[in-house]
Amino acid sequence: MIIIMQNSCIFCAIVKEKIPAYRIYEDDLFLGFLDIHPRVLGHTLLIPKKHYLWVYDVPEFKSYWQAVLKITTGMQKTLLPRFITYMTHGLEVPHAHIHILPRRANETEINPPPQFIRAEKMKYTADLLRSKLIP
Amino acid sequence: MIIIMQNSCIFCAIVKEKIPAYRIYEDDLFLGFLDIHPRVLGHTLLIPKKHYLWVYDVPEFKSYWQAVLKITTGMQKTLLPRFITYMTHGLEVPHAHIHILPRRANETEINPPPQFIRAEKMKYTADLLRSKLIP
Repeated sequence: MIIIMQNSCIFCAIVKEKIPAYRIYEDDLFLGFLDIHPRVLGHTLLIPKKHYLWVYDVPEFKSYWQAVLKITTGMQKTLLPRFITYMTHGLEVPHAHIHILPRRANETEINPPPQFIRAEKMKYTADLLRSKLIP
Repeated sequence: MIIIMQNSCIFCAIVKEKIPAYRIYEDDLFLGFLDIHPRVLGHTLLIPKKHYLWVYDVPEFKSYWQAVLKITTGMQKTLLPRFITYMTHGLEVPHAHIHILPRRANETEINPPPQFIRAEKMKYTADLLRSKLIP
């Protein structure tokens, strides 16, 4: 289901660069950036550039997950996580998004609470991921 | 990473029909069945028939998510959920699995606690889903 972008959609505003974000990945269809309320260091959101409500509404569903896999590989090469988890929920922002969480050994909770990470560390992490993901 | 099936892998035992399961989907590569510790009615696990540790280790990653989409569509037609969420974690059983959770309007918690669902209701739900998903 396509929904016309509403001025209030924060993710549409990020796509249009009206709101800044720690961008780490981009292709024709999708944009990846660090979650501003990270549950682990490197917690990434991957969204379609067009506004859809749910992840499974995105017509290019297979390409969507192919992009998730690219980000997964980039995280493995840079952040050296023990493992990586995916989560879709979507009630907080009604624009499709996939959570990608690179986990260190002790980060075993399914949905850890948000943590404060300094802006310098967010920027450093985004730069590191982007160096692998955006040529 | 391929790991040789170990006798102790419960999901490999389900694939080989050594352990019963409420099966709802099957193709050449993947098997879907109801989680025996359901967090919502219709909570499904989709696994590769071969033993891999993580979801992103599965070489047919795009086909894996294509099968998730088929199950999503089947759930939409039968269970009429408000929305459907996906989750990968994988620390409890070290055989790749994707959680697919069809949610009713009040089931908004990201990771709801497991609930008891009677065997008759599990069987009825599995039969309903299977009728759409396995020709």
